Amino acid sequence: MLVSHLEMGMLSEGLTQVLIPVAALVGIVFALLQWYVVSKVKVSGDSSSGLSDKLIEDEEDGVDNREASIKCAEIQNAISIGATSFLFTQYKYLSVFMCVFAAIIFLFLGSVKGFSTKSEPCTYNKGSLCKPALANAAFSTVAFLLGALTSVLSGFLGMKIATYANARTTLEARKGVGKAFVTAFRSGAVMGFLLAANGLLVLYISILLFKLYYGDDWEGLYESITGYGLGGSSMALFGRVGGGIYTKAADVGADLVGKVELNIPEDDPRNPAVIADNVGDNVGDIAGMGSDLFGSYAESSCAALFVASISSFGISHDYTAMSFPLIISSVGIVVCLITTLFATDLFKIKDVSEIEPSLKRQLVVSTILMTVGIAMVSFFALPSEFTIFNFGTEKVVKNWHLFFCVAIGLWAGLVIGYTTEYYTSNAYSPVQDVADSCRTGAATNVIFGLALGYKSVIIPIFSIAIAIFVSFSLAAMYGIAVAALGMLSTIATGLAIDAYGPISDNAGGIAEMAGMSHKIRERTDALDAAGNTTAAIGKGFAIGSAALVSLALFGAFVSRAGINTVDVLTPKVFIGLIVGAMLPYWFSAMTMKSVGSAALKMVEEVRRQFKTIPGLMEGRAKPDYANCVKISTDASLREMIPPGALVMLTPLITGTLFGVETLAGVLAGSLVSGVQVAISASNTGGAWDNAKKYIEAGVSEHAKLLGPKGSDAHKAAVIGDTIGDPLKDTSGPSLNILIKLMAVESLVFAPFFAAHGGLLFKYL
Amino acid sequence: MLVSHLEMGMLSEGLTQVLIPVAALVGIVFALLQWYVVSKVKVSGDSSSGLSDKLIEDEEDGVDNREASIKCAEIQNAISIGATSFLFTQYKYLSVFMCVFAAIIFLFLGSVKGFSTKSEPCTYNKGSLCKPALANAAFSTVAFLLGALTSVLSGFLGMKIATYANARTTLEARKGVGKAFVTAFRSGAVMGFLLAANGLLVLYISILLFKLYYGDDWEGLYESITGYGLGGSSMALFGRVGGGIYTKAADVGADLVGKVELNIPEDDPRNPAVIADNVGDNVGDIAGMGSDLFGSYAESSCAALFVASISSFGISHDYTAMSFPLIISSVGIVVCLITTLFATDLFKIKDVSEIEPSLKRQLVVSTILMTVGIAMVSFFALPSEFTIFNFGTEKVVKNWHLFFCVAIGLWAGLVIGYTTEYYTSNAYSPVQDVADSCRTGAATNVIFGLALGYKSVIIPIFSIAIAIFVSFSLAAMYGIAVAALGMLSTIATGLAIDAYGPISDNAGGIAEMAGMSHKIRERTDALDAAGNTTAAIGKGFAIGSAALVSLALFGAFVSRAGINTVDVLTPKVFIGLIVGAMLPYWFSAMTMKSVGSAALKMVEEVRRQFKTIPGLMEGRAKPDYANCVKISTDASLREMIPPGALVMLTPLITGTLFGVETLAGVLAGSLVSGVQVAISASNTGGAWDNAKKYIEAGVSEHAKLLGPKGSDAHKAAVIGDTIGDPLKDTSGPSLNILIKLMAVESLVFAPFFAAHGGLLFKYL
Repeated sequence: MLVSHLEMGMLSEGLTQVLIPVAALVGIVFALLQWYVVSKVKVSGDSSSGLSDKLIEDEEDGVDNREASIKCAEIQNAISIGATSFLFTQYKYLSVFMCVFAAIIFLFLGSVKGFSTKSEPCTYNKGSLCKPALANAAFSTVAFLLGALTSVLSGFLGMKIATYANARTTLEARKGVGKAFVTAFRSGAVMGFLLAANGLLVLYISILLFKLYYGDDWEGLYESITGYGLGGSSMALFGRVGGGIYTKAADVGADLVGKVELNIPEDDPRNPAVIADNVGDNVGDIAGMGSDLFGSYAESSCAALFVASISSFGISHDYTAMSFPLIISSVGIVVCLITTLFATDLFKIKDVSEIEPSLKRQLVVSTILMTVGIAMVSFFALPSEFTIFNFGTEKVVKNWHLFFCVAIGLWAGLVIGYTTEYYTSNAYSPVQDVADSCRTGAATNVIFGLALGYKSVIIPIFSIAIAIFVSFSLAAMYGIAVAALGMLSTIATGLAIDAYGPISDNAGGIAEMAGMSHKIRERTDALDAAGNTTAAIGKGFAIGSAALVSLALFGAFVSRAGINTVDVLTPKVFIGLIVGAMLPYWFSAMTMKSVGSAALKMVEEVRRQFKTIPGLMEGRAKPDYANCVKISTDASLREMIPPGALVMLTPLITGTLFGVETLAGVLAGSLVSGVQVAISASNTGGAWDNAKKYIEAGVSEHAKLLGPKGSDAHKAAVIGDTIGDPLKDTSGPSLNILIKLMAVESLVFAPFFAAHGGLLFKYL
Repeated sequence: MLVSHLEMGMLSEGLTQVLIPVAALVGIVFALLQWYVVSKVKVSGDSSSGLSDKLIEDEEDGVDNREASIKCAEIQNAISIGATSFLFTQYKYLSVFMCVFAAIIFLFLGSVKGFSTKSEPCTYNKGSLCKPALANAAFSTVAFLLGALTSVLSGFLGMKIATYANARTTLEARKGVGKAFVTAFRSGAVMGFLLAANGLLVLYISILLFKLYYGDDWEGLYESITGYGLGGSSMALFGRVGGGIYTKAADVGADLVGKVELNIPEDDPRNPAVIADNVGDNVGDIAGMGSDLFGSYAESSCAALFVASISSFGISHDYTAMSFPLIISSVGIVVCLITTLFATDLFKIKDVSEIEPSLKRQLVVSTILMTVGIAMVSFFALPSEFTIFNFGTEKVVKNWHLFFCVAIGLWAGLVIGYTTEYYTSNAYSPVQDVADSCRTGAATNVIFGLALGYKSVIIPIFSIAIAIFVSFSLAAMYGIAVAALGMLSTIATGLAIDAYGPISDNAGGIAEMAGMSHKIRERTDALDAAGNTTAAIGKGFAIGSAALVSLALFGAFVSRAGINTVDVLTPKVFIGLIVGAMLPYWFSAMTMKSVGSAALKMVEEVRRQFKTIPGLMEGRAKPDYANCVKISTDASLREMIPPGALVMLTPLITGTLFGVETLAGVLAGSLVSGVQVAISASNTGGAWDNAKKYIEAGVSEHAKLLGPKGSDAHKAAVIGDTIGDPLKDTSGPSLNILIKLMAVESLVFAPFFAAHGGLLFKYL
């Protein structure tokens, strides 16, 4: 099939040029609007407060409104300061890493053609002349820095919004659960829309600017743009690992002394680690998750763009078709905007029982609407037939093929989300069985929990496998990349319901610390329980999309490295495969041990404070929160380096010493093994957490039998919950990034490895 | 390179024909001799006892000698009856399975050429005529049944010997630790040599008999012989899974009530589950391990023989070179015989501290001697140059290449053994760190234990990767197969030190139950502690060899199925890879949950007995042991079916519906993922067990700080130990069999899949 025979889609280039930035701006404006609505809740004790007292349904039985408001403001302030100071310290370290790694990228890629400034013949678009390798090195470095900065900005904004919103959610809880829910959800939406729109806009502008130099050399242009994905994901790695260690060191440490030894409730202000715990939620779950999903989004876009650039879209310079991934994301923003209105305006929450269905409805509504959106984009933006690069050959693809690719990714995400919910929500039998096993102690609880996690991988893996098979068969690696984009197309909604979790969790913490009434605490607890499940769903999405993204990046890497087969029956590939499958274990060993050691230190500090500060247990003295914050900060900064180095150095060392085939094996191995470890770790942890909550809430007859708080079964459940903390919030979610990041790094360095890699085999 | 140019090795065919059976017979005679020595220890209270009282060093302070001897005899009898009755019940079920599966093999393979009785042109030896596919079907079925029976016999003999030896070890402990050690070790050797020799002899005779029909059609002959491996491993699967569930249901159940709730010691005769626990050690650790290693041995031999038969050895009908795998095993028996003398005669154990070094010395001595043996076999039995089938091409190989292949497998086994020891023995820092983490409770213990297990995969995986790379590069898939054989060449010694563990464990149990003195119990405890580490080493070997064996079988399968590449970049293969990597999790979820549920039932029964039998706690009444035995038996028989079906059906369904490429992906995926899960599960469990023993023994200052028995740290350690039980004795070791069995089953059914497989893709 000749390129010249291919027609263009119906959407003109000019319209595309307008559509993408407009969608991004709409997203940003919507996010600001939500923020404005949230900001109308005042947290100071100021008399000009927007809170008219007559709106408050119930009389406070603990503290008066004004005092509560002031206390909330104080606590919110402490959390915000702690989180901001940690992130700034982390960014200081990361900026050093960024500079060093930027230099490495430039030097490695520059060396591909010996830093020559001469133009080269193109690799794929035969007969044309492309920009020099040195230019690609420079632009890749710039793209890397842009991606890193956008990622950092995303995480930081998320954290700021979350800490801004948590006390407001607590205060709104006085007016009823519906008001509190909307506040938490709106704040989550602010983060979701800002991230999605921001990521799209920066990518769009970068491409425009890069084009000023590259002109018609789209091969070089989109090769350089992949640096954006690398930048995004490398920051996400440190965000996830550092944040994960921070939050869990504090959480585990606080629980071990507070809940297990001293029998004081969670989030009790007497516990010295309580502020560190709440700060951790914001830097780990919010900033880390934000960076992570932004990274996935950036990488899947880059992978799709790169493959498209060496396919007929790129070679025939069809701008609209090339921009297909960006248009999908643009439509996604609009779809999510409509979906959000379902939660904030169309259906009002009146009862606690409506929270979880409302959040789940978000997933379904966004998926259905987005399916329509994908169909429209596929038919208007794409020519009816075109060719896609498929490892050395050209594959003929029709526009409705791509519709199926994107749509199957989207729906696979929904299936993964619902499966995760089934295995981690205590409304269903798996978690109830785990809770039941607490009757015979912590050991059976752990055995059942581990078994649950192992079992929970089955359906997600089959969903991913089907999505891969369909999209791979229809449109080769491009199909996989757009399937990943499909799963991430509703990222704004996904992030909104995901961020909702930690915001509600913190709102509950603030209510406890501010000494608000039991009724308020009950409402925030209900918000939090739903948040636990949505957090698990968010992790499910993150992992599912990471699997697809990695495979797409893997395909792009293989294409760029000029390999046509990755044959398991060659020793080079097989050893890569088995060692790659081992890396998630090595990585998890590091992160779990880090959390364990840091938690031990935290325990000692908390014990010390309870021993040495007179009157602390009785609530007459204030604990030294700052010391615990410092322990978490130090541990997380120190301990994030070895796992970070493992992930960043593995592709470099493997590619340089063993060459691209072994590296391809490593990527495939770590992908297929890491997905399982990540899903099972997240779900085991989520299940233990909710099994504990199930016993605590004591809603059913069965749960009452196991409870109440403080019973032997409850103690066993707390042990499970504590073990699950590093699994679900540190090692599990970081593994997404391990598999994505190694793949995108390999892609960026592919020209270098192809030119100079495999030293060991060359000299043996 | 033409086949006719190849010369033969120096060892003549006639000599080979003599060497193999003689070595096997020497092994059997040696085993019987050891048995005779062990049998001289009398366990009845008979006055004609070989025990002259003056030999007994110490005065018994608990019971008199005669009474002890009678009690031991009673307990031994109870254990033996329990184990025999369980195995016979299990075999009843298995015989049904065997018949059904034999029919499946015959029908599937017979259908390859429509049950035609006409001879066919050979697949590899072009131009020659081979026997009809129907004959291969019939002989494969016979080989399957032979393998299954040999496996059952191996497990049964092992169990008989172990139950024969445990009370004798207890009684010998009265004369000193050295005597007890030698008794336990000799008994282990009986099992090791019987299994190794028996496996070799049956395989050798089968080949001879099959040859009467096949004549010069070695292709068909060795294709059929692979059924032997399938039979061996499928029995091993049920042995491991059924035995594993049995032993751990009893163990976990006994511990949860006995140690945790009632604070009575392990193996206390008041505990109703104690006999079931001891029976479990024999049916799980002994019979299961015996079947497992026999299966590995049979499979690696079959894989090597099959690849050889389609290489120059087979095509030029070089009998001696063809028999290379069998000669290696023959020499292995002789080497292990010499090695055994080092433990039983050359160095006498006089002190507790000499036990572990003596066992470790066995590994080193056998490895060094075997290296010499391999060199001799490689130079005398092989032509100096020959060709090996390498996925459609012929690879030229020299005899010293094969020496390196076998030797690197052997030495990789040693490295894996030592690494396992490092991570599971409480003489080193990893286990001590885990013990230390018990200070802050069970949660940190579990977190540290899991991290240790994850970390312990690193070195074994690198060793396996290096072994694979070297042997694969030197001699393609044949190299891998003989590397696996190299690792298993010292199987007699490996099994001896492995079986030593449960024998000592049971000896300790019997000492406790018979109410023997503290001194005796201390000696058996010391034997047991060393046994814990050797059991872990044995598991390390089993897993390492399983990885190599599976890869060899995988290669043989791919060759037989006529695939030349297994390209990860095709959707068919990739979905196989990711789903295959998921199977170990699915399988572990089933087995862990089975142990958990069965243990819950056991706990309820034990609690019930302590509540309803008056005087049981005070030792005035006897518990109802039989009921607990029944619970374990029922649970294990019922629960072994679903995981068994998962393993047995996956290759059949995948191959039939999706075809050989997807099946190849599944095999590769389950191999690279299963190895990690298996190693980490075994080592985590071993480490928790020994961390607990470390605190209990209280030898160092640090250990004393954590202890004594009953302290909070010790309680936390007991919880870890209990969680580790199903990991290290049920799900972990069963995974070896999962990966091997799926590979060998695929190999046996390869002709069928190649002819009729992939229905789903054909009709889509």
